Amino acid sequence: MKNFTSPLFHLKRVPDSTVRRLSLYLGFLEELEQRGEATVSSDVLARLGGTTSAQVRKDLSIFGSFGKRGLGYFVPELTVRLRDILGLGRDWHVVIVGAGKIGLALAQYPGFREKGFQVSALYDASPAKVGTTVNSIQIRNIKRLASDACTEHFDIGVIAVPAEGAQSVADTMVAAGIKAIMNFAPVQIAVPTDIVTRTVNMGLEFEALSFALANLSK
Amino acid sequence: MKNFTSPLFHLKRVPDSTVRRLSLYLGFLEELEQRGEATVSSDVLARLGGTTSAQVRKDLSIFGSFGKRGLGYFVPELTVRLRDILGLGRDWHVVIVGAGKIGLALAQYPGFREKGFQVSALYDASPAKVGTTVNSIQIRNIKRLASDACTEHFDIGVIAVPAEGAQSVADTMVAAGIKAIMNFAPVQIAVPTDIVTRTVNMGLEFEALSFALANLSK
Repeated sequence: MKNFTSPLFHLKRVPDSTVRRLSLYLGFLEELEQRGEATVSSDVLARLGGTTSAQVRKDLSIFGSFGKRGLGYFVPELTVRLRDILGLGRDWHVVIVGAGKIGLALAQYPGFREKGFQVSALYDASPAKVGTTVNSIQIRNIKRLASDACTEHFDIGVIAVPAEGAQSVADTMVAAGIKAIMNFAPVQIAVPTDIVTRTVNMGLEFEALSFALANLSK
Repeated sequence: MKNFTSPLFHLKRVPDSTVRRLSLYLGFLEELEQRGEATVSSDVLARLGGTTSAQVRKDLSIFGSFGKRGLGYFVPELTVRLRDILGLGRDWHVVIVGAGKIGLALAQYPGFREKGFQVSALYDASPAKVGTTVNSIQIRNIKRLASDACTEHFDIGVIAVPAEGAQSVADTMVAAGIKAIMNFAPVQIAVPTDIVTRTVNMGLEFEALSFALANLSK
């Protein structure tokens, strides 16, 4: 088996849009695998991923050589490799700050753990919440995050607090050595360049649609 | 008062990142307004929006002339104008397809209606759900969407169905004359170029973090 994580593959060169498509391909491959399909063509993956078969081949070629001319890709093999490329073959320790609606939903969502995202700790500032237990995770006082990070390992920090508290939580996470942050607050957080962040906010996305509609109709 | 939606402003020229920041500025302005602040500087907006004051001035200048040198921006005036620019001063009729977790959460979320997004109709394919009522909205049979769109007006379509059904829902929405689509399915939907779409999928975003972490640590 070829080493598909060879030094030839540099993270910096992989655009976000490619990573997004890899996730989509993996989703389809997992369905195909459940249905017992042995192979899949780049044409089919392209159609499902809303792209061209040339783009599928290009996306996958970054990570090594996959597929056989005329046969397509072997479903179980490509599934395993994509899982590995996306870092889904292992457990990530997730710390959630903010035990509100989003924080609690995430801590209780079974699909999250199935993908390898293990919620290790949940923090909040509210005295009414600290000490209570959710999904067998005890909610801890946010003041303890920095010191807890010395003895526990956290890979991903989730910011699920209101806008005004988000930057200070991000600062605490960065100081605690967390390298990846998922931000659900409607605010742009500032972090050093070696920290990876994603912002997910439904409100902002709906406002972008509203903006487009308001200006289309003029 | 200057006409800030003059023909000088062309939608095509406004990048997504600018629209996103306008939403963030508006969020802060609404807070400042509640606290009774009369003015705000571009420096403060910049810090809150994770950008520079030059960028704030540039973002706002697209839409006309705001603010007074030395005084900053008038909070109530800029709030009203940003709401209008983002199309939030009016009601948008939203149709949700898929009465699962996401669809129902959205139909029941008060903040959504407060922003002007009015859920006019909710569709599903499941006979067990069709006919039941959620938040005083009766769930309709998805087969009726095309004909309902002839007599009712829908601005925004929300796709809240599993991946495999998303494209066919999108096609129905486009045929029904809907110009803006919010897609929650983990799949890239194909639509004509005059249709605006946004995809929100937490799973894809977490996988992007996982990808980055897996490859940082190599």
